[in-house]
Amino acid sequence: MLDIVPEGPGYAATFRKGGAGEAGTAAARIRDKKTLVVFSGDFDRVLAAFILANGSVAMGDEVSMFFTFWGLNALRRDDPPARERTAMDKAFAAMMPSGPDRMPLSTMNMLGGGPAMIKRIMKDHNVPSLPELIGSARDSGVRLVACTMTMELLGIAQQDLIDGVELGGVAMMYGESNESNGQFFI
Amino acid sequence: MLDIVPEGPGYAATFRKGGAGEAGTAAARIRDKKTLVVFSGDFDRVLAAFILANGSVAMGDEVSMFFTFWGLNALRRDDPPARERTAMDKAFAAMMPSGPDRMPLSTMNMLGGGPAMIKRIMKDHNVPSLPELIGSARDSGVRLVACTMTMELLGIAQQDLIDGVELGGVAMMYGESNESNGQFFI
Amino acid sequence: MLDIVPEGPGYAATFRKGGAGEAGTAAARIRDKKTLVVFSGDFDRVLAAFILANGSVAMGDEVSMFFTFWGLNALRRDDPPARERTAMDKAFAAMMPSGPDRMPLSTMNMLGGGPAMIKRIMKDHNVPSLPELIGSARDSGVRLVACTMTMELLGIAQQDLIDGVELGGVAMMYGESNESNGQFFI
Repeated sequence: MLDIVPEGPGYAATFRKGGAGEAGTAAARIRDKKTLVVFSGDFDRVLAAFILANGSVAMGDEVSMFFTFWGLNALRRDDPPARERTAMDKAFAAMMPSGPDRMPLSTMNMLGGGPAMIKRIMKDHNVPSLPELIGSARDSGVRLVACTMTMELLGIAQQDLIDGVELGGVAMMYGESNESNGQFFI
Repeated sequence: MLDIVPEGPGYAATFRKGGAGEAGTAAARIRDKKTLVVFSGDFDRVLAAFILANGSVAMGDEVSMFFTFWGLNALRRDDPPARERTAMDKAFAAMMPSGPDRMPLSTMNMLGGGPAMIKRIMKDHNVPSLPELIGSARDSGVRLVACTMTMELLGIAQQDLIDGVELGGVAMMYGESNESNGQFFI
Repeated sequence: MLDIVPEGPGYAATFRKGGAGEAGTAAARIRDKKTLVVFSGDFDRVLAAFILANGSVAMGDEVSMFFTFWGLNALRRDDPPARERTAMDKAFAAMMPSGPDRMPLSTMNMLGGGPAMIKRIMKDHNVPSLPELIGSARDSGVRLVACTMTMELLGIAQQDLIDGVELGGVAMMYGESNESNGQFFI
């Protein structure tokens, strides 16, 4: 998946991978695994998260992604099955964007004009769309885990989420991140 | 404190703890310690930070939290003692939320309606309030450190902060984070 | 560069550096290296990133900084050479702040009043300006790497950036971060 990176003129392919002989990195090198906590529901931050995740997979690493708070919106279906909901759950569901195609930008959102610009320019540059990046990550074995605590708070049920998402909590996240040599809070 | 996590129907208790025999994790496993840098002053981000901190404590880990920039507001008393202040310090103090109960959401703030919704729903789900989570973290031995440099910039003095907060700088943060196997910038 | 940290009265110089004999930290201690991913284009977040970077350098650590999405704006010249651009590239360039002096705050931006307040107060406290901190980091050997993929998306060319910036991608970032004992997504 590293072919998502258009490498313009002048790109220096300086990917430096420390050999096993490099003292300082031996401990971390035994296995490369990444943990991404996706807190944000901004289109651009979630996009960055999935570019990192797919990049890791392309390098042969394992990746676990934990979606909490607004980040959960990236995993919501735009056509969830009907179900009983409290008034509060309905209110949250209606206010939050359902799925990656409806998420705002963290900056320059311009009432939705910003995301449209970014999506068009991604297409012009042959960068896969965010839903495609999510699907690609999932199909490549990236673990997508939704935080049960915030799901409850925001009134999101498992059937509201795309297929292939696991449920978990803080302990599960740390179980993964403790085995990782890279952790980002996004 | 892991009982703050309401685990809904379908929750898979898949907490995977790598055994000592697992090659890839031996180095990181000797001791688990986390460092959280809390830059944001958004209610939801600070809430996530304290959920992580209390979760770590529940798992037997050590935790250090460094509060810088707007994150300092989470540690402010709402009734600081009177003291001499410059006009600039007064201006900042007046503009910034004093304490966790006055902080905005990073999204859907809706002039304060969003935080009120989140707080009500937290209560409905028996999730401790943010001030309770802060107190719980402190009482459990989580180090709460306020960044002296940004305190000076924003005109915040130690007596403006809740009890039990230490003062420190970048070197102290790195001293802790270098000993940690988990670091998040929130 | 640790002298950028004004240490007020009561500052406890509790910098704790684990000795080589401390079991839990031996693996991470062999060499200290930090990787900062700067996603945000907010003045205050970028400021925090460079305070961390310069602090690391002062402690003898190596630092690599990767600028992606809005973070790229921190590296833009305010007087880029003229060049051919698409209409879309022009639109993005015009909407985004060119260089650290034009970047907004993440909060309390107040149509530019917030950044002006912060800059004045930094000056009053003898904290170097953000452009000075960027120059200092670069001159101290901090690697400043611009993400080629997002440069293309946002229509930013190498000649739009300040001197001394390298170009790279996700693989390069992970090559660095895998060798690091501290990674932050800012």
